[in-house]
Amino acid sequence: MDLREDADIIIKKSIQSVLPDEAVARALSDKAFGKGKIVTIAVGKAAWQMAKAASDILRQSIDTGIVITKYGHVKGEIPNIKCFEAGHPVPDENSFKGTQAVLNMVSGLNKEDTVLFLLSGGGSALFEKPLISEEELSRITNQLLACGADIVEINTIRKRLSAVKGGKFAKLCEPAKVFSIVLSDILGDLLDMIASGPACADSATSEEAAALAEKYSLKMSEKARELLKTETPKELNSVETVITGSVKNLCRAAAEACSELGYKPFILTDMLCCEAKEAGSFMASIAKSHQGTRESLAFIAGGETVVHLTGKGKGGRNQEIALSAAEGISGLKDAALFSIGSDGTDGPTDAAGGFCDSNSKGLLKAKNINIFDVLKSNDSYNALKEIGGLIITGPTGTNVNDVSVLLIKR
Amino acid sequence: MDLREDADIIIKKSIQSVLPDEAVARALSDKAFGKGKIVTIAVGKAAWQMAKAASDILRQSIDTGIVITKYGHVKGEIPNIKCFEAGHPVPDENSFKGTQAVLNMVSGLNKEDTVLFLLSGGGSALFEKPLISEEELSRITNQLLACGADIVEINTIRKRLSAVKGGKFAKLCEPAKVFSIVLSDILGDLLDMIASGPACADSATSEEAAALAEKYSLKMSEKARELLKTETPKELNSVETVITGSVKNLCRAAAEACSELGYKPFILTDMLCCEAKEAGSFMASIAKSHQGTRESLAFIAGGETVVHLTGKGKGGRNQEIALSAAEGISGLKDAALFSIGSDGTDGPTDAAGGFCDSNSKGLLKAKNINIFDVLKSNDSYNALKEIGGLIITGPTGTNVNDVSVLLIKR
Repeated sequence: MDLREDADIIIKKSIQSVLPDEAVARALSDKAFGKGKIVTIAVGKAAWQMAKAASDILRQSIDTGIVITKYGHVKGEIPNIKCFEAGHPVPDENSFKGTQAVLNMVSGLNKEDTVLFLLSGGGSALFEKPLISEEELSRITNQLLACGADIVEINTIRKRLSAVKGGKFAKLCEPAKVFSIVLSDILGDLLDMIASGPACADSATSEEAAALAEKYSLKMSEKARELLKTETPKELNSVETVITGSVKNLCRAAAEACSELGYKPFILTDMLCCEAKEAGSFMASIAKSHQGTRESLAFIAGGETVVHLTGKGKGGRNQEIALSAAEGISGLKDAALFSIGSDGTDGPTDAAGGFCDSNSKGLLKAKNINIFDVLKSNDSYNALKEIGGLIITGPTGTNVNDVSVLLIKR
Repeated sequence: MDLREDADIIIKKSIQSVLPDEAVARALSDKAFGKGKIVTIAVGKAAWQMAKAASDILRQSIDTGIVITKYGHVKGEIPNIKCFEAGHPVPDENSFKGTQAVLNMVSGLNKEDTVLFLLSGGGSALFEKPLISEEELSRITNQLLACGADIVEINTIRKRLSAVKGGKFAKLCEPAKVFSIVLSDILGDLLDMIASGPACADSATSEEAAALAEKYSLKMSEKARELLKTETPKELNSVETVITGSVKNLCRAAAEACSELGYKPFILTDMLCCEAKEAGSFMASIAKSHQGTRESLAFIAGGETVVHLTGKGKGGRNQEIALSAAEGISGLKDAALFSIGSDGTDGPTDAAGGFCDSNSKGLLKAKNINIFDVLKSNDSYNALKEIGGLIITGPTGTNVNDVSVLLIKR
């Protein structure tokens, strides 16, 4: 089945393009630094890889630096760079210690210097210096959650209670410039959402923060209330940001790989957000209407779907997308749909995702497996396993959401 | 809000194109009939309109004819054509009487003659002559349903137990030619599914029918068992078919109307089939990725979504699509999504569907209406009503599924 071969090639190339190393290399490829020092600060789950990649490229140009990443994520020494491992998703003493070390390192820089700020998912917990007690901070957060405040509202409050969030870190680096490379796992690349934007101007105002505190009748100390009144940076002229390893790149790389294989690619969305199995049905509907096409087509949807559990089986959202699509594309001529998590892990399984083609439903039926029942019990893994439909990549070392690709061969 | 104005224009033009009159006119526009008689047989919910349109165009050329439609659907006399009203969805005595009258009329025609066969939804019940007792026919159908047989399997059996289904009607018309104009409400235009294909060669064989009877251990009379062995027509050289007022036409007309208004149209699918609110989310995801586009875009999805009721509110699948999309397109610049049922009736409401744009979520929020809660209680009608988001067309006189259109203005 050559559609599976095509799928495997597309998967390999797409993931390659969003690996931290490749992403950092791409971002640094045409960057000219100032005459001063280069201080590398890497924060997040991919911090070590990003710092290592920068070090391999810039070599002795990096004068000093710090990595703060999750426990177990430091893979070795990097010249001139000190590595911290810390708590995630809940910050711990090491988060605060690492963050303080970063603040010490960037203080006293001059305007010729550059802070190379490498940011990846998980930075919100790993890079934090609260301006109130951790205990009060979590009390306020819990109140917001209980009131049904959305994530934008929560961040509007929290940015003001942190010494580094909401653009404040970039301010602390001044007069040095900040060159920020962001590996994004947030749909739509909302910069001020990634790790609450340490180097990103805050769009919310202190008036809005105060209004939220009133709207939700938040209980907080006098100190916290005063902090809400302080304004966050609204303009950061010293910061240059490149978002590089995002789901957008993942989709573009998939499109490029499809194109090389002779498919005309069409990126439907890089912000997919709906129930996984329904996304599979939607894409199968597209397949049905485009079969018998005069040219081979590829429809690409990146993003992050959700699964509402109704059973106790084993599976993941990407596997459900593929399995659900199998129903719709059954019997079509040369159509396939595959979907993967770019981190190589789909749900609590060892698979990155699933692959189904026009024959999959028939193969399942021959084994007495009904797609509808499997989806109801959320057991996509075991069903796909039966028909060789699992995609196994192992952990990829990156995490920029998922991508689903529908292939329709001429 | 000119997006709403655009929507209203697109809706009007799309529905216009699939009205039975327009559809029949289109199909007859370049048809040359033989020298013999023209016998018009119209069957289905739109039979009267279709026959009326044919009569208005062909006038005295129609020598004789019969309409069989639902009770209350005959709107007046048509020259040379006799009208029957009969039972739907369950056939009754009048269905059989009308069908017999048709069979009498088409017997004894010669090869110069043409049967103009006008077929629309509902024909399966309205046009039927069972070869076994009605009672046994329904007993067999019920057994198949209880065994979980799918609609294709059920039809494979039922076509053999009917004197007119599975291409047999066309055979009975021979040596006359049959010119069949089909107004399709079946996704994908599977001809032999529309009214079980009276003028369509049957793709299933009697071996398959026998295998199904064994597979499901069907209990039936000796006579029925013998009928399963008789073969249905596999080739019908005397039949010419035009599928005209289908969801495909609806989508094409929407695309054309979008194009005239300056949008670059893209038909995603004309076979949409998934949960309504998830289709709305999927299309909103497309909007998010294509905002800021250099040209105005329109994404079109035709088909028929489903709603799994979780509440007791008032609404319909098209209204849910629009409302659900409102969440995703909120805050975008100049984006809107509307969705309508082509019959003008969405769910048990007086609305044809719903319209939402980038401001809808904000307008709802100002009225303390939460989209998520509304969808959970399936109360889309009342929510849309509050913000002027209902689309009211009144009954349109056609029924070729739904169409959803996403508009993104440059």
